[in-house]
Amino acid sequence: MSLDRLSLNQKTTNSLGLPEAIELCVRQGLSSIGVWREPLAEVGAERARQLLDDAGLRVSSLCRGGFLTTDDASARSEALDDNRSAIVEAATIGAPTLVMVVGGLLAGSTDLIGARQRMADGIAELAPFAADHGVVLGLEPMHPIFTADRGVLSTLEQALDLAEQFPVDQVGVVVDTYHVWWDPQVATQIARAADRIVSYQVCDWVVPLAADTLLSRGMMGDGSIDFGSLTAMVEAAGYSGDIEVEIFNADVWATDPEEVVDTMKRRYSELVQGRVPDARRH
Amino acid sequence: MSLDRLSLNQKTTNSLGLPEAIELCVRQGLSSIGVWREPLAEVGAERARQLLDDAGLRVSSLCRGGFLTTDDASARSEALDDNRSAIVEAATIGAPTLVMVVGGLLAGSTDLIGARQRMADGIAELAPFAADHGVVLGLEPMHPIFTADRGVLSTLEQALDLAEQFPVDQVGVVVDTYHVWWDPQVATQIARAADRIVSYQVCDWVVPLAADTLLSRGMMGDGSIDFGSLTAMVEAAGYSGDIEVEIFNADVWATDPEEVVDTMKRRYSELVQGRVPDARRH
Repeated sequence: MSLDRLSLNQKTTNSLGLPEAIELCVRQGLSSIGVWREPLAEVGAERARQLLDDAGLRVSSLCRGGFLTTDDASARSEALDDNRSAIVEAATIGAPTLVMVVGGLLAGSTDLIGARQRMADGIAELAPFAADHGVVLGLEPMHPIFTADRGVLSTLEQALDLAEQFPVDQVGVVVDTYHVWWDPQVATQIARAADRIVSYQVCDWVVPLAADTLLSRGMMGDGSIDFGSLTAMVEAAGYSGDIEVEIFNADVWATDPEEVVDTMKRRYSELVQGRVPDARRH
Repeated sequence: MSLDRLSLNQKTTNSLGLPEAIELCVRQGLSSIGVWREPLAEVGAERARQLLDDAGLRVSSLCRGGFLTTDDASARSEALDDNRSAIVEAATIGAPTLVMVVGGLLAGSTDLIGARQRMADGIAELAPFAADHGVVLGLEPMHPIFTADRGVLSTLEQALDLAEQFPVDQVGVVVDTYHVWWDPQVATQIARAADRIVSYQVCDWVVPLAADTLLSRGMMGDGSIDFGSLTAMVEAAGYSGDIEVEIFNADVWATDPEEVVDTMKRRYSELVQGRVPDARRH
């Protein structure tokens, strides 16, 4: 089975710096990587671009921008500036999309409607700037377990309602199996998403949840998600780009990265890979 | 402020048996209680009915039926029988609705579509029996944190799509703030629900979540939920029945029940109570 579309999201091998993660991808025969801003900052975007080019790796996405729900003018201005920096970084390393984790409620607040409106306003401010840099903002609906503290964008339907207010080269959506698998509307909304899909990320939902729920993203096959169905939906919608494996999990992080990638490749081939065998950038 | 519509769900004072919970309600001036099957079984439904009548308490609901996702014929038959027993118990104690927690995926399964279909088939088998006993099945959409292991009914929209296949005296929906607060569709779907709403339950979403996520239901005011807005939606939809406070929380359970009910009454008056002051059974 071909691994041409498989991308290692850096979080899956969280202990490695970007140069080490790039080397791991090359050693393991992968052709794409999903980069995070913190390890990118350790290297610098220009140097990272050189390393990636030398290795012949595609960048499937940059994680992450967002956190746009504040109602404080100065904090909001800072957040927008930080997102513009992220967009420039994405452009520099050749990431087609910046994954947006939009932010949760303010501490002590119950104003979900207000937080959602401020998030939408922030996207509107950033979208043209992103497109000017050749980067699409990837709105990532997050599992409702994170609505309060991480992402007030909760469903693919809601993400599309927002994304469709912008040109397709400005704002798209991220389909992450962990965040959308439970949604009774998932088939309808993935079909609707069509060319708005800018990233497809996979990992499993494992019960019981980890005590720190942020770390409950599991290796494909360890949990409740039917990857075959979701991949088929995403491909039927027209997405033929990279498929990122993004796992936040203390046990995975404590395992030798080489072994993690071995397992990842096997599970990807067995469970995730869809029916379109040839890799094509979207 | 009137407490006429406030109902103590037994789970909120989990350490008490039904007779003690009834006494607590009377002492605290409450006029309604939400009963659970396990403590009900300790007393017996007939005796419970007597205690409730003597105390002059309404029963707002019986928790709970459901768990209808099995694909094993014998287990399915058992589950249906158990639900019929629950319906008879509800009728005996004068509960207008049996709250249905429909069940999660089978162990090791990723067949969410199949589990949802079997759940729907089970509701269809039980609905006429329920109505014959004067009991409405209350479909409770559960927060997607529970899709894998507890309830494959995940949104109010999904619950209404199912409920509307039956007469209104057979199948309704339960609006529980904990389960629905995050949903971008909540206002639309509560308005749509109208006379399908058979129970309104409240508690708060508190972050960080408890390590056992089942116990992360918090006292109103301790978390992220805007109760005023949700109550206004439920009342605008026409619901004027009891409002149950149902809290699963180790700290609350470790607190003196008298103190818990004091706090519950205060928070209910401050945060939950809507604009319709007079209690009327729906």
